Amino acid sequence: MNVYELTKAKRDGQRLTQEQIEFLVDGFTQGTIPDYQFSAFLMAVYFQGMDSQEITALTMAMMNSGKVFDLSDIPGPKIDKHSTGGVGDKVSLILAPLVAACGVKVPMVSGRGLGHTGGTLDKLEAIPGFRTDLTFARFRKNLKDVGVAMMGQTSELAPADRKMYALRDVTATVDSIPLIAASIMSKKLAEGIDGLVLDVKTGNGAFMTRLADARRLARTMIAIGGSRGGSPARKSGTVPGQRTTAGTVPGFRGENSGTVPRMGKKVSALITRMDQPLGRATGNAVEVVETIEALKGECPDDLKTVTLALGQEMLMMGLGISRREGLNRLSSAWDDGSALERFRMMVRAQGGDERVIADCSRLPQARFRIPVKSRHSGFLSRIDTLRIGMLAVRLGAGRMRTDDKIDPAVGFRFLRKLGDVAGRGDVLAEVLANDRLLGKQVAAELAECYTLGAVKPRRQGMIVERIG
Amino acid sequence: MNVYELTKAKRDGQRLTQEQIEFLVDGFTQGTIPDYQFSAFLMAVYFQGMDSQEITALTMAMMNSGKVFDLSDIPGPKIDKHSTGGVGDKVSLILAPLVAACGVKVPMVSGRGLGHTGGTLDKLEAIPGFRTDLTFARFRKNLKDVGVAMMGQTSELAPADRKMYALRDVTATVDSIPLIAASIMSKKLAEGIDGLVLDVKTGNGAFMTRLADARRLARTMIAIGGSRGGSPARKSGTVPGQRTTAGTVPGFRGENSGTVPRMGKKVSALITRMDQPLGRATGNAVEVVETIEALKGECPDDLKTVTLALGQEMLMMGLGISRREGLNRLSSAWDDGSALERFRMMVRAQGGDERVIADCSRLPQARFRIPVKSRHSGFLSRIDTLRIGMLAVRLGAGRMRTDDKIDPAVGFRFLRKLGDVAGRGDVLAEVLANDRLLGKQVAAELAECYTLGAVKPRRQGMIVERIG
Repeated sequence: MNVYELTKAKRDGQRLTQEQIEFLVDGFTQGTIPDYQFSAFLMAVYFQGMDSQEITALTMAMMNSGKVFDLSDIPGPKIDKHSTGGVGDKVSLILAPLVAACGVKVPMVSGRGLGHTGGTLDKLEAIPGFRTDLTFARFRKNLKDVGVAMMGQTSELAPADRKMYALRDVTATVDSIPLIAASIMSKKLAEGIDGLVLDVKTGNGAFMTRLADARRLARTMIAIGGSRGGSPARKSGTVPGQRTTAGTVPGFRGENSGTVPRMGKKVSALITRMDQPLGRATGNAVEVVETIEALKGECPDDLKTVTLALGQEMLMMGLGISRREGLNRLSSAWDDGSALERFRMMVRAQGGDERVIADCSRLPQARFRIPVKSRHSGFLSRIDTLRIGMLAVRLGAGRMRTDDKIDPAVGFRFLRKLGDVAGRGDVLAEVLANDRLLGKQVAAELAECYTLGAVKPRRQGMIVERIG
Repeated sequence: MNVYELTKAKRDGQRLTQEQIEFLVDGFTQGTIPDYQFSAFLMAVYFQGMDSQEITALTMAMMNSGKVFDLSDIPGPKIDKHSTGGVGDKVSLILAPLVAACGVKVPMVSGRGLGHTGGTLDKLEAIPGFRTDLTFARFRKNLKDVGVAMMGQTSELAPADRKMYALRDVTATVDSIPLIAASIMSKKLAEGIDGLVLDVKTGNGAFMTRLADARRLARTMIAIGGSRGGSPARKSGTVPGQRTTAGTVPGFRGENSGTVPRMGKKVSALITRMDQPLGRATGNAVEVVETIEALKGECPDDLKTVTLALGQEMLMMGLGISRREGLNRLSSAWDDGSALERFRMMVRAQGGDERVIADCSRLPQARFRIPVKSRHSGFLSRIDTLRIGMLAVRLGAGRMRTDDKIDPAVGFRFLRKLGDVAGRGDVLAEVLANDRLLGKQVAAELAECYTLGAVKPRRQGMIVERIG
């Protein structure tokens, strides 16, 4: 068994065994397989794909390259949520305390913003004092006491993923569904959770712009999780479109589970719409403000819809209750202030200044507020969400490289959303900037992201479909 | 312009410009593009191919990475021959002095054996004292004085190819027609030749086992050479099957020649059969013996046919004479001993012991001669030529890695060829070995390379087709 033979096999469309994939991942992580061979292998995977068994083996090998958290002694169901990323996606900040208030533990290992998508850690760190670099002991304690804990990925968790991602990032092998799915799932499954709800975004602000790709990614990740409530994984056993060789053995069916151990995790996915920024703000402090206002009862419809739908999935999965009962409990916890209280507890437990909840002016404030005015009149019919995300990066709210610094105070507020009407000169959005000139430049470009039409666009539901 | 963007573009099936390809080759050769990025690019090329303009740009960039010989002050046409390699292929040893005797200069930069195929340099070096590590000055002098000079690739000639091949060899990106064609042509065109005749082998002992692949490779290399005798390169303008995107602009047509400079070299190709070892010997000293016997008039039919056909191409190209006239001159030079005399001059000029010509026992001799006996009776209907080549390597006549040592004395002599009849126990071949045990093992396996049938197989012509 050597990397040359395995690269050639994958290049020629053959399926690799669990042992072969472990050999590759271990060798690369430990440095016995050089980068120049592994990158050729990754490109071969890009073109030839992997079937479900291969992807599961890859995920497990990556997960097992580091520590796997054991949370089994913490009472209660442990359910996490993962989003594939979008613009203005502050769902985790609201959802995690909300679900925790309903009795489901939420151990969440999150990421930072990269490219056009924001990151939960960056948003939380806009709160003065908030620490995301928790030790595992502290993470456990907070999870036990507060019901929710949020931290960044440590070097102990799936180090293979960290090293693989760095190589993929410079060799044009990032956007491969098997590699994306294994990257996400190896980290999430290392958290020691019982179940995972996926928010797979689709639309012009999502990583997967096409619905078919979002579906494939969702099905692939569900297949990795492996728990299908007892029913055979007919649809998700193989990854459609990635590798359709006749004779491919679908993974995860009872009769085949001998070759690759089942993860035994509950996983479901919602495909949700990302064709405009979610809610009414993007940035870091400004999204914390929106989170606090939302938990106090002022939540934009689209943000509320996605949060509740994901919350229902988590409660159904964790508590075994019905979708309707889930909605009842979530609505109560939201309305009676217990979700906000859980948020306050989390902020306090992670060292943050909880006074921001009563007084948002304690959060970083941008010096300039520049209006973005409509150049035409009509109905907002299209919003270039990817470009808005990239403009946020340019403004300083995000980063292009992992070592870029961000400015927590800057961002956008969106006054009008898809389907709203606007007259010429009406304010569509506001740019919150610390550099007036840059802010004005960004504001001028932001105006170009909006398309206005004469006809009111058909309103589209936020939840495109459920897969699970 | 950066390697990431160019890798992504190639991965997504886009065509690269001349400037982009130069950037990649120069960056990789000079070390500013790391191996781990270039290998991913190579794998993308493996899957997406290249069109004619891209392949020509690649060839030129590789050629220009080192010195390009200038032989313009040496009078007479300079024509080389290149074979894609096979088993028992000693054509160059006979052809080069033969053609030189007819007034065409043959500046030949050759390679060593690797894998199942032998190498001209290894064979020549079986002659005591023969030097292939000539300086360029000596190479020029010999070419002028003798009409033929044979040397190995120096580090000055297309260093990009050397570095690229080393990376391709460990990343499963060797067998890509655009990369093979550019590798061959970049070295050959750096020799300062006026024209090149290609011997593209097809069959079970060739690198291109399938005729369609051999055709593609031949057309690709001819397209690189670029001279089409004035007629548009309709057939070879694009590389069929490698990249068939609609809208690809075929290279080398008059109206498009502005984007990539024409090489302006005459190139033609013969596709020749390699479904059994060529002639009656494989090895190094043993092929020199066969060469000397051939030049003295005892030449196996298949070897003679291929040598004369390639010689005709070279004379037509170099002297502008007809195919028939070419054959006349070749036959005269062969029969009257002037080809043998030219061989003698070459051996002397390159430091070899010319006494081997009169007395072959001065060449390295193997200690053991082990017969390979037929286990069945019938007509020889199939010979596993690739396996024979690999057995020759095992015996010590070739190498698997570039730093393996070879034994010039060992090899095989073939007493029966395809279509011959053999009775049970008849000798099919002889193994010439310096280790009796190894020789016996190899002999036993060599017997397995022969398939005998009840029906005499149809005799197939050695020259499959001409492309040019």
